[in-house]
Amino acid sequence: MIFKTRSCRRFDESFHIEYKTLEELVDLARLSASGGNRQPLKYLIYNSPEDCGKVFPSVVWAAYLKDWDGPATGERPSGYIIILGDNSITEAFGVDHGIAAQSIMLGATEAGLGGCMIASIKREQLRNELKIPERYEILLILALGKPVEKVIIDEIKDNDVKYWRDPENNHHVPKRPLNDLIIKI
Amino acid sequence: MIFKTRSCRRFDESFHIEYKTLEELVDLARLSASGGNRQPLKYLIYNSPEDCGKVFPSVVWAAYLKDWDGPATGERPSGYIIILGDNSITEAFGVDHGIAAQSIMLGATEAGLGGCMIASIKREQLRNELKIPERYEILLILALGKPVEKVIIDEIKDNDVKYWRDPENNHHVPKRPLNDLIIKI
Repeated sequence: MIFKTRSCRRFDESFHIEYKTLEELVDLARLSASGGNRQPLKYLIYNSPEDCGKVFPSVVWAAYLKDWDGPATGERPSGYIIILGDNSITEAFGVDHGIAAQSIMLGATEAGLGGCMIASIKREQLRNELKIPERYEILLILALGKPVEKVIIDEIKDNDVKYWRDPENNHHVPKRPLNDLIIKI
Repeated sequence: MIFKTRSCRRFDESFHIEYKTLEELVDLARLSASGGNRQPLKYLIYNSPEDCGKVFPSVVWAAYLKDWDGPATGERPSGYIIILGDNSITEAFGVDHGIAAQSIMLGATEAGLGGCMIASIKREQLRNELKIPERYEILLILALGKPVEKVIIDEIKDNDVKYWRDPENNHHVPKRPLNDLIIKI
Protein backbone atom coordinates (compact mmCIF):
# COMPACT_ATOMS: atom_id res chain seq x y z
CA MET A 1 0.00 0.00 0.00
CA ILE A 2 2.89 2.34 0.79
CA PHE A 3 4.47 1.53 -2.54
CA LYS A 4 1.19 2.30 -4.31
CA THR A 5 0.72 5.57 -2.44
CA ARG A 6 2.44 8.10 -4.66
CA SER A 7 1.91 11.85 -4.64
CA CYS A 8 -0.45 12.63 -7.48
CA ARG A 9 -1.37 16.07 -8.83
CA ARG A 10 -3.64 15.42 -11.83
CA PHE A 11 -7.11 13.98 -11.38
CA ASP A 12 -10.37 13.19 -13.12
CA GLU A 13 -12.20 16.23 -11.77
CA SER A 14 -15.59 14.80 -12.76
CA PHE A 15 -15.18 12.03 -10.20
CA HIS A 16 -17.29 12.72 -7.13
CA ILE A 17 -15.82 11.76 -3.74
CA GLU A 18 -18.47 10.84 -1.20
CA TYR A 19 -18.47 12.92 1.97
CA LYS A 20 -18.58 9.67 3.95
CA THR A 21 -15.34 8.54 2.31
CA LEU A 22 -13.58 11.69 3.50
CA GLU A 23 -15.03 11.21 6.97
CA GLU A 24 -13.66 7.67 7.06
CA LEU A 25 -10.24 8.98 6.07
CA VAL A 26 -10.30 11.46 8.95
CA ASP A 27 -11.26 8.58 11.23
CA LEU A 28 -8.00 6.85 10.24
CA ALA A 29 -6.13 9.98 11.31
CA ARG A 30 -8.15 10.07 14.54
CA LEU A 31 -6.96 6.58 15.45
CA SER A 32 -3.30 7.33 14.71
CA ALA A 33 -0.62 8.26 17.21
CA SER A 34 -0.51 11.77 18.67
CA GLY A 35 2.26 13.34 20.77
CA GLY A 36 1.33 12.96 24.45
CA ASN A 37 -2.04 11.76 23.09
CA ARG A 38 -3.09 15.44 23.02
CA GLN A 39 -4.95 15.05 19.69
CA PRO A 40 -4.83 18.75 18.80
CA LEU A 41 -5.68 18.32 15.11
CA LYS A 42 -8.98 19.38 13.58
CA TYR A 43 -10.16 18.82 10.02
CA LEU A 44 -12.08 20.62 7.30
CA ILE A 45 -13.62 18.46 4.58
CA TYR A 46 -14.70 19.64 1.11
CA ASN A 47 -16.13 17.61 -1.76
CA SER A 48 -18.34 19.94 -3.80
CA PRO A 49 -17.08 21.68 -6.96
CA GLU A 50 -17.98 25.03 -5.39
CA ASP A 51 -16.00 24.42 -2.19
CA CYS A 52 -13.08 22.84 -4.02
CA GLY A 53 -12.97 25.95 -6.19
CA LYS A 54 -12.46 28.01 -3.04
CA VAL A 55 -9.51 25.91 -1.85
CA PHE A 56 -7.67 25.47 -5.15
CA PRO A 57 -6.27 29.01 -5.62
CA SER A 58 -4.52 28.87 -2.22
CA VAL A 59 -2.52 25.76 -3.07
CA VAL A 60 1.03 26.28 -4.37
CA TRP A 61 1.60 23.40 -6.79
CA ALA A 62 4.77 21.44 -7.51
CA ALA A 63 7.54 23.98 -7.03
CA TYR A 64 10.00 22.10 -9.24
CA LEU A 65 7.77 22.19 -12.33
CA LYS A 66 8.50 25.79 -13.28
CA ASP A 67 6.26 25.92 -16.36
CA TRP A 68 3.27 24.26 -14.67
CA ASP A 69 0.87 26.30 -12.56
CA GLY A 70 -0.99 23.31 -11.22
CA PRO A 71 -3.66 21.04 -12.66
CA ALA A 72 -5.83 22.46 -15.46
CA THR A 73 -9.61 22.64 -15.32
CA GLY A 74 -10.90 19.07 -15.58
CA GLU A 75 -7.82 17.69 -13.81
CA ARG A 76 -8.21 19.38 -10.45
CA PRO A 77 -8.83 17.64 -7.11
CA SER A 78 -12.45 16.83 -6.34
CA GLY A 79 -11.90 16.71 -2.60
CA TYR A 80 -9.78 18.32 0.09
CA ILE A 81 -9.04 17.57 3.71
CA ILE A 82 -7.44 20.52 5.45
CA ILE A 83 -5.54 19.70 8.64
CA LEU A 84 -5.71 22.42 11.28
CA GLY A 85 -3.94 22.73 14.62
CA ASP A 86 -6.21 23.78 17.46
CA ASN A 87 -4.26 26.36 19.49
CA SER A 88 -6.75 26.03 22.32
CA ILE A 89 -5.34 22.53 22.95
CA THR A 90 -1.63 23.16 22.32
CA GLU A 91 0.59 25.37 20.19
CA ALA A 92 3.10 22.58 19.58
CA PHE A 93 1.78 20.09 17.07
CA GLY A 94 5.05 18.19 16.66
CA VAL A 95 4.70 15.78 13.78
CA ASP A 96 1.09 14.87 14.49
CA HIS A 97 -0.01 16.24 11.12
CA GLY A 98 2.63 14.18 9.31
CA ILE A 99 1.38 11.01 11.01
CA ALA A 100 -2.25 11.95 10.30
CA ALA A 101 -1.56 12.87 6.68
CA GLN A 102 0.18 9.58 5.98
CA SER A 103 -2.71 7.63 7.51
CA ILE A 104 -5.16 9.54 5.33
CA MET A 105 -3.13 9.12 2.15
CA LEU A 106 -2.72 5.37 2.66
CA GLY A 107 -6.45 5.08 3.30
CA ALA A 108 -7.13 7.14 0.18
CA THR A 109 -5.09 4.72 -1.93
CA GLU A 110 -7.05 1.83 -0.46
CA ALA A 111 -10.26 3.66 -1.40
CA GLY A 112 -9.09 4.00 -5.03
CA LEU A 113 -8.14 7.64 -4.66
CA GLY A 114 -4.86 9.48 -4.81
CA GLY A 115 -3.54 12.85 -3.85
CA CYS A 116 -0.86 15.04 -2.49
CA MET A 117 0.12 16.55 0.86
CA ILE A 118 0.69 20.28 0.49
CA ALA A 119 2.43 22.48 3.04
CA SER A 120 3.05 25.31 0.60
CA ILE A 121 -0.15 27.24 1.13
CA LYS A 122 -1.28 30.86 0.74
CA ARG A 123 -2.43 30.74 4.33
CA GLU A 124 -3.98 34.17 4.79
CA GLN A 125 -5.85 33.89 1.51
CA LEU A 126 -7.19 30.47 2.49
CA ARG A 127 -8.16 31.67 5.96
CA ASN A 128 -10.14 34.54 4.48
CA GLU A 129 -11.76 32.45 1.77
CA LEU A 130 -12.93 29.70 4.13
CA LYS A 131 -13.46 31.96 7.18
CA ILE A 132 -11.18 29.83 9.33
CA PRO A 133 -11.10 31.25 12.89
CA GLU A 134 -7.73 32.51 14.20
CA ARG A 135 -7.78 29.77 16.84
CA TYR A 136 -6.84 27.23 14.16
CA GLU A 137 -3.41 27.07 12.57
CA ILE A 138 -3.46 25.92 8.94
CA LEU A 139 -1.01 23.00 8.84
CA LEU A 140 -1.52 20.95 5.68
CA ILE A 141 -3.83 20.63 2.71
CA LEU A 142 -4.49 17.13 1.42
CA ALA A 143 -5.68 17.33 -2.19
CA LEU A 144 -7.61 14.23 -3.25
CA GLY A 145 -9.17 12.80 -6.36
CA LYS A 146 -9.21 10.02 -8.92
CA PRO A 147 -5.64 10.01 -10.30
CA VAL A 148 -5.06 10.34 -14.04
CA GLU A 149 -1.28 10.52 -13.96
CA LYS A 150 1.31 7.81 -13.75
CA VAL A 151 4.02 8.31 -11.13
CA ILE A 152 7.33 6.53 -11.59
CA ILE A 153 10.04 6.16 -8.95
CA ASP A 154 13.57 6.49 -10.28
CA GLU A 155 16.86 6.02 -8.54
CA ILE A 156 18.37 9.41 -7.76
CA LYS A 157 21.22 10.70 -9.96
CA ASP A 158 23.79 13.32 -8.97
CA ASN A 159 21.90 13.99 -5.77
CA ASP A 160 19.18 15.79 -7.77
CA VAL A 161 15.87 15.46 -5.89
CA LYS A 162 13.77 17.44 -8.39
CA TYR A 163 10.81 15.53 -9.78
CA TRP A 164 10.08 15.97 -13.51
CA ARG A 165 7.67 15.06 -16.29
CA ASP A 166 8.53 13.05 -19.37
CA PRO A 167 7.04 13.74 -22.85
CA GLU A 168 4.18 11.32 -22.10
CA ASN A 169 3.39 13.42 -19.01
CA ASN A 170 4.45 10.71 -16.58
CA HIS A 171 5.64 12.16 -13.30
CA HIS A 172 9.11 10.92 -12.24
CA VAL A 173 10.28 11.03 -8.63
CA PRO A 174 13.96 10.36 -7.87
CA LYS A 175 14.42 8.54 -4.56
CA ARG A 176 17.64 8.01 -2.63
CA PRO A 177 18.67 4.33 -2.35
CA LEU A 178 18.21 2.48 0.94
CA ASN A 179 21.96 2.18 1.43
CA ASP A 180 22.28 5.96 1.58
CA LEU A 181 19.60 6.22 4.25
CA ILE A 182 20.79 3.64 6.76
CA ILE A 183 23.87 4.94 8.51
CA LYS A 184 26.50 2.73 10.06
CA ILE A 185 28.47 4.49 12.76
CA MET B 1 -4.05 -1.89 9.77
CA ILE B 2 -4.29 1.61 11.22
CA PHE B 3 -6.81 0.39 13.78
CA LYS B 4 -4.46 -2.43 14.77
CA THR B 5 -1.44 -0.10 15.03
CA ARG B 6 -1.53 1.02 18.65
CA SER B 7 1.36 2.50 20.62
CA CYS B 8 2.79 -0.32 22.69
CA ARG B 9 5.41 -0.03 25.46
CA ARG B 10 5.79 -3.56 26.86
CA PHE B 11 7.36 -6.33 24.80
CA ASP B 12 8.68 -9.87 24.90
CA GLU B 13 12.32 -8.87 25.09
CA SER B 14 13.48 -12.39 24.21
CA PHE B 15 11.98 -12.00 20.72
CA HIS B 16 14.71 -11.36 18.17
CA ILE B 17 13.91 -8.92 15.34
CA GLU B 18 15.78 -9.70 12.14
CA TYR B 19 17.99 -6.91 10.84
CA LYS B 20 16.41 -7.44 7.43
CA THR B 21 12.97 -6.73 8.90
CA LEU B 22 14.15 -3.37 10.20
CA GLU B 23 15.73 -2.60 6.83
CA GLU B 24 12.43 -3.35 5.11
CA LEU B 25 10.66 -0.99 7.49
CA VAL B 26 13.10 1.79 6.61
CA ASP B 27 12.42 1.03 2.96
CA LEU B 28 8.74 1.83 3.58
CA ALA B 29 9.80 5.20 4.99
CA ARG B 30 12.08 5.71 2.00
CA LEU B 31 9.15 5.34 -0.38
CA SER B 32 6.91 7.73 1.55
CA ALA B 33 6.30 11.39 0.79
CA SER B 34 8.94 13.98 1.66
CA GLY B 35 8.60 17.77 1.59
CA GLY B 36 9.93 19.05 -1.74
CA ASN B 37 11.14 15.44 -2.21
CA ARG B 38 14.31 16.48 -0.35
CA GLN B 39 14.51 13.16 1.58
CA PRO B 40 16.67 14.53 4.39
CA LEU B 41 16.04 11.68 6.84
CA LYS B 42 18.65 9.11 7.80
CA TYR B 43 18.19 6.05 9.97
CA LEU B 44 20.04 4.09 12.64
CA ILE B 45 18.99 0.48 13.16
CA TYR B 46 19.64 -1.62 16.28
CA ASN B 47 18.55 -5.17 17.01
CA SER B 48 21.15 -6.69 19.37
CA PRO B 49 20.61 -6.78 23.15
CA GLU B 50 23.86 -4.88 23.59
CA ASP B 51 22.91 -2.04 21.23
CA CYS B 52 19.35 -1.88 22.53
CA GLY B 53 20.81 -1.54 26.01
CA LYS B 54 22.62 1.59 24.83
CA VAL B 55 19.46 3.21 23.46
CA PHE B 56 17.04 2.35 26.27
CA PRO B 57 18.32 4.76 28.99
CA SER B 58 17.86 7.76 26.69
CA VAL B 59 14.18 7.12 26.12
CA VAL B 60 11.71 9.02 28.32
CA TRP B 61 8.78 6.64 28.75
CA ALA B 62 5.07 7.41 29.01
CA ALA B 63 4.96 10.77 30.77
CA TYR B 64 1.40 10.26 32.05
CA LEU B 65 2.23 7.07 33.97
CA LYS B 66 3.88 8.76 36.92
CA ASP B 67 4.75 5.60 38.84
CA TRP B 68 6.15 3.74 35.84
CA ASP B 69 9.75 4.32 34.71
CA GLY B 70 9.39 2.37 31.51
CA PRO B 71 9.36 -1.32 30.68
CA ALA B 72 11.11 -3.67 33.13
CA THR B 73 13.89 -6.03 32.14
CA GLY B 74 12.35 -8.77 30.02
CA GLU B 75 9.71 -6.38 28.63
CA ARG B 76 11.99 -3.93 26.85
CA PRO B 77 12.09 -3.30 23.09
CA SER B 78 14.28 -5.68 21.10
CA GLY B 79 14.78 -3.26 18.25
CA TYR B 80 15.07 0.46 17.58
CA ILE B 81 14.96 2.63 14.51
CA ILE B 82 16.28 6.10 15.22
CA ILE B 83 15.23 8.78 12.74
CA LEU B 84 17.84 11.47 12.15
CA GLY B 85 17.65 14.69 10.16
CA ASP B 86 20.66 15.28 7.94
CA ASN B 87 21.55 18.97 8.29
CA SER B 88 23.78 18.75 5.24
CA ILE B 89 20.61 18.35 3.14
CA THR B 90 18.29 20.78 4.93
CA GLU B 91 17.67 22.13 8.41
CA ALA B 92 13.91 22.13 7.96
CA PHE B 93 12.52 18.62 8.20
CA GLY B 94 8.86 19.67 8.27
CA VAL B 95 6.75 16.64 9.09
CA ASP B 96 8.85 14.19 7.09
CA HIS B 97 9.67 12.22 10.23
CA GLY B 98 5.99 11.95 11.17
CA ILE B 99 5.18 10.55 7.72
CA ALA B 100 8.15 8.17 7.88
CA ALA B 101 7.37 7.03 11.43
CA GLN B 102 3.76 6.22 10.56
CA SER B 103 4.86 4.21 7.52
CA ILE B 104 7.30 2.25 9.69
CA MET B 105 4.78 1.63 12.46
CA LEU B 106 2.13 0.38 10.04
CA GLY B 107 4.70 -1.89 8.43
CA ALA B 108 5.75 -3.12 11.87
CA THR B 109 2.17 -4.12 12.68
CA GLU B 110 1.97 -5.99 9.40
CA ALA B 111 5.21 -7.79 10.36
CA GLY B 112 3.69 -8.89 13.69
CA LEU B 113 5.56 -6.28 15.69
CA GLY B 114 4.46 -3.27 17.69
CA GLY B 115 6.03 -0.23 19.18
CA CYS B 116 5.99 3.38 20.02
CA MET B 117 7.16 6.67 18.50
CA ILE B 118 9.17 8.63 21.05
CA ALA B 119 10.08 12.30 20.73
CA SER B 120 10.92 12.71 24.41
CA ILE B 121 14.59 11.80 24.26
CA LYS B 122 17.69 12.57 26.32
CA ARG B 123 19.33 13.76 23.14
CA GLU B 124 22.81 14.65 24.33
CA GLN B 125 23.10 11.41 26.26
CA LEU B 126 22.00 9.41 23.22
CA ARG B 127 24.36 11.31 20.92
CA ASN B 128 27.30 10.53 23.21
CA GLU B 129 26.34 6.90 23.76
CA LEU B 130 25.93 6.14 20.04
CA LYS B 131 28.56 8.60 18.80
CA ILE B 132 26.12 10.31 16.48
CA PRO B 133 27.91 13.06 14.50
CA GLU B 134 26.74 16.65 15.04
CA ARG B 135 25.61 16.78 11.41
CA TYR B 136 22.57 14.68 12.33
CA GLU B 137 19.66 15.99 14.35
CA ILE B 138 18.00 13.34 16.54
CA LEU B 139 14.32 13.51 15.59
CA LEU B 140 12.49 10.40 16.79
CA ILE B 141 13.13 7.03 18.35
CA LEU B 142 10.91 4.17 17.22
CA ALA B 143 10.97 1.43 19.86
CA LEU B 144 9.95 -1.94 18.44
CA GLY B 145 9.29 -5.44 19.69
CA LYS B 146 6.82 -8.24 20.12
CA PRO B 147 3.96 -6.65 22.09
CA VAL B 148 2.81 -8.21 25.35
CA GLU B 149 0.31 -5.55 26.37
CA LYS B 150 -3.25 -5.00 25.33
CA VAL B 151 -4.14 -1.47 24.26
CA ILE B 152 -7.75 -0.37 24.45
CA ILE B 153 -9.20 2.75 22.87
CA ASP B 154 -11.80 4.52 24.98
CA GLU B 155 -13.97 7.47 24.20
CA ILE B 156 -12.56 10.57 25.88
CA LYS B 157 -14.23 11.85 29.07
CA ASP B 158 -14.03 15.40 30.43
CA ASN B 159 -11.44 16.26 27.80
CA ASP B 160 -8.85 14.19 29.70
CA VAL B 161 -6.28 12.88 27.20
CA LYS B 162 -4.12 11.00 29.74
CA TYR B 163 -3.70 7.31 28.99
CA TRP B 164 -3.84 4.96 31.98
CA ARG B 165 -3.48 1.32 33.04
CA ASP B 166 -6.21 -0.81 34.55
CA PRO B 167 -5.60 -3.44 37.27
CA GLU B 168 -5.02 -6.10 34.58
CA ASN B 169 -2.27 -3.87 33.15
CA ASN B 170 -4.22 -3.10 29.99
CA HIS B 171 -3.24 0.26 28.55
CA HIS B 172 -6.21 2.57 27.90
CA VAL B 173 -6.04 5.45 25.43
CA PRO B 174 -8.87 8.01 25.39
CA LYS B 175 -9.56 9.30 21.88
CA ARG B 176 -11.67 12.28 20.88
CA PRO B 177 -14.77 11.36 18.84
CA LEU B 178 -14.86 12.01 15.10
CA ASN B 179 -17.55 14.66 15.50
CA ASP B 180 -15.20 16.78 17.60
CA LEU B 181 -12.48 16.62 14.96
CA ILE B 182 -14.39 17.58 11.84
CA ILE B 183 -15.23 21.26 11.99
CA LYS B 184 -18.14 22.85 10.19
CA ILE B 185 -17.68 26.53 9.56
